[in-house]
Amino acid sequence: MFLEQIENPNDIKKIDRADYGALAEEIRQFLIEKISVTGGHLGSNLGAVELTMALHLALNLPEDKIVWDVGHQSYTHKLLTGRKDGFDCLRQFHGMSGFPKRKESNYDAFDTGHSSTSISAGLGLVKARDLKGEKNTIVSVIGDGSLTGGMAYEALNNAAELETNFIIILNDNNMSISENVGGMSKYLNNIRTANGYLDLKEGVYNALLGTKRGDTLINRIRRAKSSFKQLVIPGMFYEDMGITYLGPVDGHDVENLTRLIQEAKRVKGPVMIHALTQKGKGYGPAERHPARFHGAEPFDIETGIPSHPRTVANYTDIFSTVMCKLGQRDERIVAITAAMPDGTGLKRFRNMYPDRFFDVGIAEEHAVTFAAGLAAGGMKPIVAVYSSFLQRAYDQILHDVCIQNLPVVFAIDRAGLVGSDGETHQGIFDFTYLSGIPNMHICAPKNKWELSDMLKFAVALDAPIAIRYPRGNAYAGLKEYRAPIALGRAEWIYREKDIALFAVGSMVKTGEAVRDLLKEKGLFVSLINARFVKPIDEEAVLEACKTHHLIVSLEENVATGGFGEKVLDCMSRNGCDNRYLNISIPDAYVEHGNVELLKQEIGIDAASITDRILKMEQNGKAQ
Amino acid sequence: MFLEQIENPNDIKKIDRADYGALAEEIRQFLIEKISVTGGHLGSNLGAVELTMALHLALNLPEDKIVWDVGHQSYTHKLLTGRKDGFDCLRQFHGMSGFPKRKESNYDAFDTGHSSTSISAGLGLVKARDLKGEKNTIVSVIGDGSLTGGMAYEALNNAAELETNFIIILNDNNMSISENVGGMSKYLNNIRTANGYLDLKEGVYNALLGTKRGDTLINRIRRAKSSFKQLVIPGMFYEDMGITYLGPVDGHDVENLTRLIQEAKRVKGPVMIHALTQKGKGYGPAERHPARFHGAEPFDIETGIPSHPRTVANYTDIFSTVMCKLGQRDERIVAITAAMPDGTGLKRFRNMYPDRFFDVGIAEEHAVTFAAGLAAGGMKPIVAVYSSFLQRAYDQILHDVCIQNLPVVFAIDRAGLVGSDGETHQGIFDFTYLSGIPNMHICAPKNKWELSDMLKFAVALDAPIAIRYPRGNAYAGLKEYRAPIALGRAEWIYREKDIALFAVGSMVKTGEAVRDLLKEKGLFVSLINARFVKPIDEEAVLEACKTHHLIVSLEENVATGGFGEKVLDCMSRNGCDNRYLNISIPDAYVEHGNVELLKQEIGIDAASITDRILKMEQNGKAQ
Repeated sequence: MFLEQIENPNDIKKIDRADYGALAEEIRQFLIEKISVTGGHLGSNLGAVELTMALHLALNLPEDKIVWDVGHQSYTHKLLTGRKDGFDCLRQFHGMSGFPKRKESNYDAFDTGHSSTSISAGLGLVKARDLKGEKNTIVSVIGDGSLTGGMAYEALNNAAELETNFIIILNDNNMSISENVGGMSKYLNNIRTANGYLDLKEGVYNALLGTKRGDTLINRIRRAKSSFKQLVIPGMFYEDMGITYLGPVDGHDVENLTRLIQEAKRVKGPVMIHALTQKGKGYGPAERHPARFHGAEPFDIETGIPSHPRTVANYTDIFSTVMCKLGQRDERIVAITAAMPDGTGLKRFRNMYPDRFFDVGIAEEHAVTFAAGLAAGGMKPIVAVYSSFLQRAYDQILHDVCIQNLPVVFAIDRAGLVGSDGETHQGIFDFTYLSGIPNMHICAPKNKWELSDMLKFAVALDAPIAIRYPRGNAYAGLKEYRAPIALGRAEWIYREKDIALFAVGSMVKTGEAVRDLLKEKGLFVSLINARFVKPIDEEAVLEACKTHHLIVSLEENVATGGFGEKVLDCMSRNGCDNRYLNISIPDAYVEHGNVELLKQEIGIDAASITDRILKMEQNGKAQ
Repeated sequence: MFLEQIENPNDIKKIDRADYGALAEEIRQFLIEKISVTGGHLGSNLGAVELTMALHLALNLPEDKIVWDVGHQSYTHKLLTGRKDGFDCLRQFHGMSGFPKRKESNYDAFDTGHSSTSISAGLGLVKARDLKGEKNTIVSVIGDGSLTGGMAYEALNNAAELETNFIIILNDNNMSISENVGGMSKYLNNIRTANGYLDLKEGVYNALLGTKRGDTLINRIRRAKSSFKQLVIPGMFYEDMGITYLGPVDGHDVENLTRLIQEAKRVKGPVMIHALTQKGKGYGPAERHPARFHGAEPFDIETGIPSHPRTVANYTDIFSTVMCKLGQRDERIVAITAAMPDGTGLKRFRNMYPDRFFDVGIAEEHAVTFAAGLAAGGMKPIVAVYSSFLQRAYDQILHDVCIQNLPVVFAIDRAGLVGSDGETHQGIFDFTYLSGIPNMHICAPKNKWELSDMLKFAVALDAPIAIRYPRGNAYAGLKEYRAPIALGRAEWIYREKDIALFAVGSMVKTGEAVRDLLKEKGLFVSLINARFVKPIDEEAVLEACKTHHLIVSLEENVATGGFGEKVLDCMSRNGCDNRYLNISIPDAYVEHGNVELLKQEIGIDAASITDRILKMEQNGKAQ
C-alpha cells in the first residue's frame, strides 16, 4: 500500500517512480470508495489523478502554488496534502469542502467553485510574485470546458503579454459536465487528433529541405514572427497570442508530465501544457456516464447505481416536463443552457425540439444576450440556469434584456441553500441582484403545481421574468391552493388575525410549520404565499396590516434587497406602524452541509423562526 | 452636396458610386461640426463612415439587421436612416441617443452601450430568423477592442457551430478607447502586417509544387481538415473554429467593402470580414489624440481644443492625484483598469509606476479576479472602474474577492447619474448589487477631501471595500468637516431636531440645499453625512430617531437594496416608529440628458425633495 506512506504534503516525492502507477490506482480506489459513501465530484477527480501527482512531484509546495479551476478536480490534491481523513466528512457540515479553500489548508492557493477563474487568479499571483522579487512557480489548471468561459479568454489575452514564467495546464477531457460545444472545442479536437497533422507538417518541412529554394524558405520561416510557428507546431493560436504551447501530451503519464512541468518552469513567459485526460478514468460507470458521475450522490460501487434512488420528483423534473409541453404548444419557445442540459432538466426538451435548444457552453454572459437577441427576433426564450451561476450574467440581464424590456424567461434552479457545494454555490443573492433591475419581474412557487403554473404565466408575459426554485424534492403539499397566477398578486392560504406570515417560495412550507408551532402557543396566524417578489402585492400587505399586529416576511435570500425589505418599505410608505420581523439569510456566506442543518445554523428553520416570533411577541423588538 | 440627397433610409443607394468618396467627406464634416457643438463620440464614428456606407449599400434595411457593438460608431447609421435632424439635440434630454435604440428607430436592431455584446445578440437574431424560415441578413459589427471582452469570445465559440449565414465585421482600428492590449491584439497585428507572411505562404506552396513529393503533400493538405487552411490563408484561428475569414481589407474602401459583404452573404455559416480602419480618420486632432476624442466635450474645430475647458477638478482628478501619492507611500499598491487608463485617471499612476499598473483590456471579469489573485499574493490592488461597467464583474466580486475576504479596493467612478450617455451608463445600481455581498464594505465621499481620506482608509482596511463617486466636478464645499474616517461611522454636519437628513455621497450637497429650503419654512433640520452604506451607522440612526420625528435618507441609487432600506430596516429592528422618507432613484431606467434636468425629472433635486418632505409633514405619508 503506497497510499499509506502519504501522510504529509510532499510525501509523494518519497515514492519510487516505478510505483507511480500503483499509487494512482490506489488513489482511484480510495476516491471511488469514499465518494460512493459521501457523494461528491467523481469523474473530474478520477481524470486528474496523474496530473495532480505530476504537479506534486514537479513543484515545491506550498511555496509553489496551484490554482484549480472550478476546483472539483482537487480531491487528489487534498489527499496528497495531509487531508486523507477529511474524506469521511467530505462536503458535510463543518467537514472538508469539496473545493479548494485557503482557510482549510495552506496548500490551497486560491478558493474556487465557479468556472474559468484560474488563469486570472494565477496571473495575479504571478504578478505579485514578480513584484516581490520571488521566484516560485505558479500553475493554473483549467479544463477545456472552463476554457469556453469568456473570462478564461480575457485572462489568456492578458497573460500573453507576460515576460516571466506562468504555467497553464489545459486539462482536456473533451467534456464540460456534459459534452463540450463550440468552435474552441473543435479547435482543440483538431489538435487532439493531430497525429496525421504533425506528420504532415514534418512532411512539408522535409520536402522543403534539400532544395535551394526550400532551404531559403526554412531560414525565412525561422527568422519570421510567431505566426509562422504554425508551420512546425500545433497550438499555433496560443503561440500567435504569445503563449508557448507544449503538447498535446498524455495526461495519464506521470513521469512524462512531471518532466514537461519541469521544462515549462524554464520558459520565460506564459506556457500552456495541453494534457489529454479521460473523465471518470478507471471506473467503468463514470467513463460511460460522465454527466451522471460529475456530481454524484452516494452509489453502489459494483453497479454504479445510486444507493438511495430518488423516488420523489424534484423541481428540475417538473421544469423538464412543463418545458416539453410548452414547447409543443408554442413553436416560438426556445431553451438555452450554459453547458448544463442535464442539471437544468433541458435534456428532454433537447431531444424533442433539437432546433429550439441551445447549449452555448460555460458562457452565462453570452447565454443571456443571445436570449435577448432571440427575443428581439420574435422568439420566447427560456434561459435555464442555476442561481449562483446567473450572477455571471447580471450586467447582461440589466443591459441587454431589461432596458429593451425583452420577454426572456429566467428559470433559476438551485435557488436558496443548495447544501453540499457550499459558499460558492448557494443561490441566496438572486432576489437582490434581480430586484434592483427595472422592468424585471420575479416570482417563486410554493409547490410543484405552482412551478408549472408560473412557467405558463411567464411565457405569456411580454416582459422579462425570473422564476426561482430550490434544489431537491418538489413540495407536494397545499395542492388544493391553486388560484390562477396574476401579476404581482399574492395568495392567501390561511386567513386569521394577530400574526401574518408572508412567505416566498420554499418558505411557504416552512411557514406552515411555523404556523402550527405558533398555534400550539395559542396564537392566530395567517399565511400568505407571496408568489411575487417583484412587484410585491402591496394590497395584501396593507390588508394584513389592518388585522394583524405583527407582519413577518420569510425568504431564502439575503435580507438586503430581498422580499422583506420591500414589505417593510411598503408598510413605511403607507404609514403602517405594525411591528415587523424579517426572516432571511444573515449577511454572511453559508458553508457546505445538509440544508436542514444549515437552516438551523442560520436561524431560518421552523423552530428558530417560531422562537424569534415568540420573543418578539414578548418584548416588541426584532431579534 | 450629396448629403442633401439623403433624407430617408436607403437613399444612399441613389448615389453614384463615383461620388462615394465625396459623400464620405461630407458625412465626416457633418459629424465634426455637430459633435463640436453637442459633444459626443467622435473618433469611433469617423473611423466607421465608409464601413457604414458599405453596409447600407450591400444590405436591404430594415429587413436586414445591423447590430453595433457598444454603439458609439452608429452616428453615420443614424444619419443614413433619416435622423439627420436629431444631431442638433444629440444626447440631450428627450433628444437623440448616442447609442442605437430600438424605440428610436426601426432601423436599430438591438440596443447597445456596453462592450462585446453584438455577436451574442446578432447570433440570437440569426437563430430567430432561421426558426421563422426567413432569409434576411444579420450583421454584427465589432471593434478589435470589444473583441478583448470575454463574452465576444463566448459568442464566437457558439457562432462557430452555425450552418447558416451570419456576418461578423471586425472593425479593427488597433485601439480600444486607449491603446489596445493583450495577446489577441498581437494576433490581429500579425495579420494586419501580413504581406510578407502571405508571400511566404505562397512561397512554401510554390516550392512544394512541381516536385512529386510536394504534389502529394499539397493534395493531402487539400483533403485535410480546416486546421491546414492555415497554409493558405490568414485568420486561421477563426477558420479552425469554423468561421470563414475574409481579409484583412481596407475599411475605408466603400466599393470593395460593399462587394465583400455581398460575397459574405452567400457563405453558409459564420463569416468574419476583417476591415482595417483608422480611429478619428479625416480629422487631424482626433487622429493624433484618439483617447481625447473618444467621448469628446464640445470643441473648437480649428484647434481641437475644448470650447469650455475644465477649470474645476473632478473626482477622477482627485483619485488620480491620491493614487500617485499612495503608490509612493506603499509599494504593495497596484492599480488595475479595464481599458480605461484615461477615463479612470490612472494614466499618471501608470507613468510613475509602470510595473504596478495593469491595463487588462475590456475585461472587467478578469480584472476583478486578477485583482483577487494579486491580493492573495500580498499586494493591495485598487480596481478603478465605472459603476455601470463593474456590473460585468458582479460574480467575480462575490465569488473571487469577498468569499476569501481579500483586500481589494474598488474605486467606482461615474456612480450615480452620468448624463449624456444615458440608460446603459447610469451608475445607479452599485449600492444594490454590492450591498448584498457578505464581507463587502461600501462608502461614498461628500466632497473632494473626503475622497482622498476614504482612499487612504480603504487601502489600510484589510478587507474588500468600494468607494463610489460621481462624474463631474468634485464638490469643494464643507471643507471644514473632515473628521477622521472610521468604519461604519457617519458624520454629523448640522445637528438640530425635527427632521434628520441622512445623505450619501453626492447627496450631502443636495442635503445642504434641502436644509436651507426647509429652514425658510421654519423647520429645523439635521444633516448627517452617511459616509458608509455598508455597514451603516446604526448608532447615528438611533440617535437621530430620539430627537427627530422624521428621518429622510438621500441617495443616488435605486431604492431596492440601497442605503435607505438599510436605514428603515435598522429603525424597524429597533422599534423606532419615527416617520421615514426614502429619497432615491425610482424603479425605472433613466435616459440621457443633463444631470440636473434628470434629477428634476425623477424628483431627486433639492426643490422636489423639499416638496416631498413638506407634503409628508402635512399628511404623514410618504409621497
